[in-house]
Amino acid sequence: MLTNRRMVRIEWGDCDPAGIVYFPRYFEIFDACTAELFELAGLPKAEMIQKYKIIGTPVVEVQADFSMPSTYGDNVMIETSIPSWKISSFRVEHRLMKGPMLAIAGFETRVWATRHPDDPDRLKARPIPREVMERFKKAPTPVPPSPRTPVFPKPR
Amino acid sequence: MLTNRRMVRIEWGDCDPAGIVYFPRYFEIFDACTAELFELAGLPKAEMIQKYKIIGTPVVEVQADFSMPSTYGDNVMIETSIPSWKISSFRVEHRLMKGPMLAIAGFETRVWATRHPDDPDRLKARPIPREVMERFKKAPTPVPPSPRTPVFPKPR
Amino acid sequence: MLTNRRMVRIEWGDCDPAGIVYFPRYFEIFDACTAELFELAGLPKAEMIQKYKIIGTPVVEVQADFSMPSTYGDNVMIETSIPSWKISSFRVEHRLMKGPMLAIAGFETRVWATRHPDDPDRLKARPIPREVMERFKKAPTPVPPSPRTPVFPKPR
Amino acid sequence: MLTNRRMVRIEWGDCDPAGIVYFPRYFEIFDACTAELFELAGLPKAEMIQKYKIIGTPVVEVQADFSMPSTYGDNVMIETSIPSWKISSFRVEHRLMKGPMLAIAGFETRVWATRHPDDPDRLKARPIPREVMERFKKAPTPVPPSPRTPVFPKPR
Repeated sequence: MLTNRRMVRIEWGDCDPAGIVYFPRYFEIFDACTAELFELAGLPKAEMIQKYKIIGTPVVEVQADFSMPSTYGDNVMIETSIPSWKISSFRVEHRLMKGPMLAIAGFETRVWATRHPDDPDRLKARPIPREVMERFKKAPTPVPPSPRTPVFPKPR
Repeated sequence: MLTNRRMVRIEWGDCDPAGIVYFPRYFEIFDACTAELFELAGLPKAEMIQKYKIIGTPVVEVQADFSMPSTYGDNVMIETSIPSWKISSFRVEHRLMKGPMLAIAGFETRVWATRHPDDPDRLKARPIPREVMERFKKAPTPVPPSPRTPVFPKPR
Repeated sequence: MLTNRRMVRIEWGDCDPAGIVYFPRYFEIFDACTAELFELAGLPKAEMIQKYKIIGTPVVEVQADFSMPSTYGDNVMIETSIPSWKISSFRVEHRLMKGPMLAIAGFETRVWATRHPDDPDRLKARPIPREVMERFKKAPTPVPPSPRTPVFPKPR
Repeated sequence: MLTNRRMVRIEWGDCDPAGIVYFPRYFEIFDACTAELFELAGLPKAEMIQKYKIIGTPVVEVQADFSMPSTYGDNVMIETSIPSWKISSFRVEHRLMKGPMLAIAGFETRVWATRHPDDPDRLKARPIPREVMERFKKAPTPVPPSPRTPVFPKPR
């Protein structure tokens, strides 16, 4: 099962007056991780939307369990994969790690969606092309990802 | 059970390239609705934090089911209440309505939290004062809330 | 000159670990105020985009001077107007007031823009229709705006 | 003069219904770049705040000129430096490059600030320690930074 790993540096602007990440920011991070997983599978979002005439893969269900807070300056690693596919929807799992510890487990159910043909204000789920699903079943790439947050060379 | 109602105008900046609300924005809206419910109960966040020496009421679990998308210019109404209390946590429910229809159901489990005495990077759940809980069991106020999004008087 | 006034409650999630508004949030507020001024002029954004076949009025220059910080729970008032129009651009001014004091002065230069006909990745400025400009030269409406932040009735 | 370079992948959630970056997001990016420049100078934000007893370096003036839009999937490079220092303030410049082209020039004036001793709701500018300024006058480090957006190894 294809898994994306993304290092994220928590920024000052991600945090609230308690000094910890304002939780909606985690969902922004997770959404970017989902897009990156698709990119890892060879489906950058802009190309995918154009090729398959979809508006994207909007969420219909989101869930997250928060075990540990993070603060600015923290580096966290998010592992993202798609454990199950249905006809027109799929489930995404995110595991946000602080070092060896699972800080947040996040889940999304997303649909392969177009605008509704009869009502542009509504969405319509469509069958996910088989070729799309199959891209995610390949063995995970053995190459370690480049860190998203560089270790800064200190000036001398 | 005390219920807060908040009208929110969906803004251009809340929406994504598909023209619908980028879903993390809903969690920002819901978080503000929770704060407003506490304010309705006589506990404005800044005062509550100072009075009870907590860092806030961070989420430990968040869940949302999305039935209908919204777009910029839409006015939505969010009804927020706290259906259950435990020793040191409580469950918040948000119902985001588009006219008569439920567009999103959101849930939060939040804890009454201080910094951990032994480790400032961790949080510690504390018993919720009885006087706090009781403020939310009162009958809902019969006064209709002022709309947050005014109907604009057209210039003549 | 038409002027929009919008009351905004500063939320917990607008603030950073110093407990004051994270400054990019002010630009989100200002952008919503510009949209609201157009709505006050009879041009809700969605209708305007459809009617005039523009992609919007993207900023080409933004500037802001910050005199006083704000924090969660603060109510601020933003006065927005368009003091000058050019062929295809206009200048927006925002005055964010804390009570009687000017806390922030913000400025935007925006263009009336379509996608570039030769390159969809670029934008092209277009002449602003006279009828659009004239809507903003009308006398300000004397009706006081409804407050965006209701004074909450305290439950008894 | 010390210069930080940061690669940023523009995300779906950074963009608005026109499909281009919602401009307040650029200020979030710039703020993170300023923090990263300080980190490159050996002053990670959390340590700096604790060591010097400041609340941070809040902006008192922000300005940006936008020449080209960006969209999701774009990789942009931001070069950040501090061209001038005053007693208690400094000017930050950001150059956001799309390939060889300058897409946005951003400027911030920031102050070295504590809470006001007589009024915790106000800030007070303080003289910037000489040792802080001097860290930024060193020659830029010759080591190329790791890209923040990895080129993904395609799964086989």
